[in-house]
Amino acid sequence: MIATVDSDRLSAELATLASFSESPAPAVTRIVFGEMDLRARAWLKALVAEASLVVREDAVGNTFARWPGRDPTLPPVATGSHCDAIPNAGRFDGTVGVLGGLEAIRALRRAGFEPNRSIDLVLFTSEEPTRFGLGCLGSRLLSGSLDASAGETLKSGGRSLNEVRAAAGFTGALTDVPLRPGAYSAFVELHIEQGPLLERDLIDIGVVTAIAAPASLRLVVDGEGGHAGAVLMPDRHDAFLAAAEIALAIEASARSTGAVDTVATTGVCEVFPGAINSVPSRARLEVDVRDIDLARRDSVLAAIAKACDEVGTRRGVTVRLEPINADPPAQCAAPIVDAITAACGARGLSHRRMISRAYHDSLFMARIAPAGMIFIPCRGGVSHRPDEYASPDAIAHGVEVLAGTLASLAAR
Amino acid sequence: MIATVDSDRLSAELATLASFSESPAPAVTRIVFGEMDLRARAWLKALVAEASLVVREDAVGNTFARWPGRDPTLPPVATGSHCDAIPNAGRFDGTVGVLGGLEAIRALRRAGFEPNRSIDLVLFTSEEPTRFGLGCLGSRLLSGSLDASAGETLKSGGRSLNEVRAAAGFTGALTDVPLRPGAYSAFVELHIEQGPLLERDLIDIGVVTAIAAPASLRLVVDGEGGHAGAVLMPDRHDAFLAAAEIALAIEASARSTGAVDTVATTGVCEVFPGAINSVPSRARLEVDVRDIDLARRDSVLAAIAKACDEVGTRRGVTVRLEPINADPPAQCAAPIVDAITAACGARGLSHRRMISRAYHDSLFMARIAPAGMIFIPCRGGVSHRPDEYASPDAIAHGVEVLAGTLASLAAR
Repeated sequence: MIATVDSDRLSAELATLASFSESPAPAVTRIVFGEMDLRARAWLKALVAEASLVVREDAVGNTFARWPGRDPTLPPVATGSHCDAIPNAGRFDGTVGVLGGLEAIRALRRAGFEPNRSIDLVLFTSEEPTRFGLGCLGSRLLSGSLDASAGETLKSGGRSLNEVRAAAGFTGALTDVPLRPGAYSAFVELHIEQGPLLERDLIDIGVVTAIAAPASLRLVVDGEGGHAGAVLMPDRHDAFLAAAEIALAIEASARSTGAVDTVATTGVCEVFPGAINSVPSRARLEVDVRDIDLARRDSVLAAIAKACDEVGTRRGVTVRLEPINADPPAQCAAPIVDAITAACGARGLSHRRMISRAYHDSLFMARIAPAGMIFIPCRGGVSHRPDEYASPDAIAHGVEVLAGTLASLAAR
Repeated sequence: MIATVDSDRLSAELATLASFSESPAPAVTRIVFGEMDLRARAWLKALVAEASLVVREDAVGNTFARWPGRDPTLPPVATGSHCDAIPNAGRFDGTVGVLGGLEAIRALRRAGFEPNRSIDLVLFTSEEPTRFGLGCLGSRLLSGSLDASAGETLKSGGRSLNEVRAAAGFTGALTDVPLRPGAYSAFVELHIEQGPLLERDLIDIGVVTAIAAPASLRLVVDGEGGHAGAVLMPDRHDAFLAAAEIALAIEASARSTGAVDTVATTGVCEVFPGAINSVPSRARLEVDVRDIDLARRDSVLAAIAKACDEVGTRRGVTVRLEPINADPPAQCAAPIVDAITAACGARGLSHRRMISRAYHDSLFMARIAPAGMIFIPCRGGVSHRPDEYASPDAIAHGVEVLAGTLASLAAR
């Protein structure tokens, strides 16, 4: 089954989706349950309806578009990704897996393929942690990795997830969201690499074998405020300067493992009261630590905790360290890895086994279904930036491999 | 002339003024031309009208309430301060000089005093830099230290000062704001110390002889963003980590002068895009440097510029350094210092000559009139915080001394 991809149409659809943005082009900002997210979802639902797929939405807004197979008693095969975008991001992260998944289904239909198992295209809610501080909200709930109490405990600007999703029209019970293990026979996600390796080595396709283990923390530093002119230097307990030292210690902890796969990032720093003439009384950091090796990642977390203690004591400030999440790495399933590899081979596309350093819905789907990921090159390895770019050819190769993989898995 | 202060009434008025706040009590937030600032102004104007003072407002909202003297041909004496408050501040900074000035006038009138020169109570617009990034907006314009083009160049959230003041009802020409030098025969400001010295040494009154020289800077660091999972540590150009190093270098520069009077503060740090899973591509710092010695302060500014260069080069980021302002220190006028000292002596209040480390409207009024300041103790030297506190007795002492000083200066 060699399906032909309509690359022009797919590029045009990616451009349209990018136009639903809270920031001016080329930047894309699409925050879950914001106006642009809701407009993008409406547009997507119309698009999948046009392709005769049957749409279902769950209580957290995960959206399932089904191409019914010959045997509705068999667990379906699923593919999909997300459409939300962090502030000032690009147009390819997540969206290639959603619109590319749709194009794979359309291409298979055009090629006359009739699936034995149904094929579901899944749009996951809030893969990005921007709004609720926790990534992969939809796939965590789907996979039972997060329970329904999150509807009340997760907050955005003082409103609970339940309030925000209800305002967006998703009013069902979160307890109805989880899928039972085995509900899908397989899950495959197409995604841009978000790293430089495929482009550098001129490889068409990355066949993902494992997804790195992410952990995230919130740090709150409480010092002592005061007037910037009047509080003398030796009397200060400046919360921001303590936070600055901690951020530098976090960087040093990640570098000190000596392993290229250890990364740590302080992506958020908020200073309170945030006035030029006021000594900062409080600072809030959000920190992301990843590694493919769980023990090594946890050693970085321990080094961060130690640095917080040391800086707090020396500067006379208190540092609270709140873990947000610390997920174990996921292994991709051998039959899926093999199906992807075979699909590459059948199309003469070069491919390489690799790990995913970034965090994906597949990490959680792997807990309830055999899962795999298909990576395509992106320019300079750049992602989460307006200049994120994957060429139409690279995307078309990814969609061809996805179509071949879905055909193989859905025929079984 | 020993005027008796109505301390209960003054405390009640300070409490009422504190209730006009954008943050919950005990914190006070009152941003210039915001709803609470406008409500506070309306309340104040009613209060001074009740005291039979004649009110005039200028185009930037500086408000003048006059007690007419016997000889209207003589330049009046003026007193006053500000009512705006930075986010999460206290209730005494500035307000003690405004409501205390009013109570000084009422007390003099109750004591039967009749001024030869008129006495003006001045409410200055935006002593705090919160909204437009520049402190002492009103007194800078009044003293001709800032020209009318600031109406277009100063911005708040994309709107010019002219747009914001017009929306608040101040529509006149900024060119009409400056007072000619000599317009006032004297200017005296009552203020909390915002430092710990008077309280520590049990001194009733600080007689200010000079105001420290403030300088402020904006620093913009541009690095390279990217996905927190995918960009490896050696490939990063993290703008926030560069900013963190610069903030620590700023602290070190201030401490390295070895002089207790050198202070430097990074009160604002904003990180872009500000997502937990995104390497910061940009960071913005706002920095305040003060000293009573101009050359020493400027040596700190030079050290900061050098640190920006060094960090920028080493981390492969660009650092732009934009001076916001760099004002020279002000000397208080000997006749005013003497009048304040005499007023303390007449009331048997202990007093000490001191410098003001904080920044006040007097710094600019000193450019067009002989000026002086009266400081009162505040608890722990704390200011710009919700727990800022000056006792009713300390405030009453300050108002008594202000009344005595005004009586002496207005009788001449």
